[in-house]
Amino acid sequence: MRIGIIGGGAIGLLFASHLSEKHNVTLYTHTADQASIIQRDGIRLIADGENRLLTGIISKGLDEGISDVDLLIVAVKQYHLPQILPRIKGIKVPLLFLQNGYGHISYLKQLQSPTIYVGVVEHGALKHDGNTVEHTGLGITRIASFRGELGQLSLVNERIDHFPFTTSEDFHSMLMDKLVVNAVINPLTAILGVENGGLITNSFHYQLFQDLFGEISGILEVQNKDESFEHVKSVCMATAENRSSMLKDLENGRKTEIDAILGHILSEAKSKGKSDCLTSSLYKMVKGKESQGG
Amino acid sequence: MRIGIIGGGAIGLLFASHLSEKHNVTLYTHTADQASIIQRDGIRLIADGENRLLTGIISKGLDEGISDVDLLIVAVKQYHLPQILPRIKGIKVPLLFLQNGYGHISYLKQLQSPTIYVGVVEHGALKHDGNTVEHTGLGITRIASFRGELGQLSLVNERIDHFPFTTSEDFHSMLMDKLVVNAVINPLTAILGVENGGLITNSFHYQLFQDLFGEISGILEVQNKDESFEHVKSVCMATAENRSSMLKDLENGRKTEIDAILGHILSEAKSKGKSDCLTSSLYKMVKGKESQGG
Repeated sequence: MRIGIIGGGAIGLLFASHLSEKHNVTLYTHTADQASIIQRDGIRLIADGENRLLTGIISKGLDEGISDVDLLIVAVKQYHLPQILPRIKGIKVPLLFLQNGYGHISYLKQLQSPTIYVGVVEHGALKHDGNTVEHTGLGITRIASFRGELGQLSLVNERIDHFPFTTSEDFHSMLMDKLVVNAVINPLTAILGVENGGLITNSFHYQLFQDLFGEISGILEVQNKDESFEHVKSVCMATAENRSSMLKDLENGRKTEIDAILGHILSEAKSKGKSDCLTSSLYKMVKGKESQGG
Repeated sequence: MRIGIIGGGAIGLLFASHLSEKHNVTLYTHTADQASIIQRDGIRLIADGENRLLTGIISKGLDEGISDVDLLIVAVKQYHLPQILPRIKGIKVPLLFLQNGYGHISYLKQLQSPTIYVGVVEHGALKHDGNTVEHTGLGITRIASFRGELGQLSLVNERIDHFPFTTSEDFHSMLMDKLVVNAVINPLTAILGVENGGLITNSFHYQLFQDLFGEISGILEVQNKDESFEHVKSVCMATAENRSSMLKDLENGRKTEIDAILGHILSEAKSKGKSDCLTSSLYKMVKGKESQGG
């Protein structure tokens, strides 16, 4: 299969390197510089302390336009989607969107492709440089259909080592599950400056963890609150030593995904007239720290 | 006048050095070590880039007991008061308490002295070592009576260079004004990691500043909210480049004054049934960071 991937960040590089084992991959990057390095040297994938060099991946700057592909994966951050959309609006091939949060869903309706999937990536990935990515946590990619038949996506029936796929029936609940996890863990770890496990082991942090889960699950009208709470807690413990992406973004003076993650929740709270005191305070704290630039 | 001062922290050292110019000062410290250094070498006062060595201050460990004095100033942190109280419970001379917050007021009723004053210190002071203190910000000390006549306190009619005193009619409103300032500036700067001015210049931080002032002034039923808000803001701007004591405490892994400052406000909110979402979240954040130990 010819697979196009838009985005040369950690997730784009991770998908390009793993999918290139069985597919013909073209990676579209924001800068022509990054594309030419990948085109020349391939992508270096670090996993379990081993280095693998994956060559044979075609890479182009996005400005060159998108060639014919059978599946186009959009792996840019949610806040970069608006600049990508004009390029993919008229494309008719199946599209797969891998953004965090829920904010990207509102963009998808304006696309012409009859087949649109959304995915949730549960892998850990760290970009070292323009053509090096470390697979820091082995997870799974969940895919659900936003529009069209999920059965058409052969990816989910393949076996790629260390890179499993699974399907979800309902894109809304799939994204919501991930959103609740991200919305509780990311802002708190970013503001408190702790690894994920610190939210559980520090009794004051754990009170905030419970408070924030309570507020967010109320705003999103989560059906099975106990089960959802235990899920968020189990993710925290399974990734106890990880520093969340939002914490790392703030520490490095980078833009965070706070709008994608808490923005949707705040607009839901507003439209439903629900209390959002802690969520909106954390939103302002992260935005304020982000604008300080680390 | 014979003045006893309990507490060898920044405020105790600052008061001892300035008051020793006109008075016979005895400084009671927690450790005998600190007392013997001060007894031997005096106190070094740094102000405006100049060093002054003040000798002739008597210093003793608190365990040696308190000698006859005409005024006893209690300059320990609020959280150390419970261990000091048994030693001063039966003392009949005038007492002056210099703690932040409002929590110490509840302790004063059990004391036997017929004359009890409370003070609010608006000086900036930084302790460099056991007998060195820097006067980092010239301010004023406000004194009000908790019990007995204020007219008996000759201190407020004296002129000591760079160390003015003034009186306030009502101890409650005097402490409340300072409490609102501390309760807004300290926790926010501590959690956001900014100098005081950052709360005004960063638009997201300023929203939090407004939110927190609104919540706290509601809980404390502040009478003139606009005037009080402008006061807190003016303190923030006048001390724009200062790092608050709570921020420095957290950065250095020290205990903060969060209980003295937000504890009283949270118990007021509880007894009045008022919303305290942001105050209690900031309380938990500071307590959590404090228990991480920096």
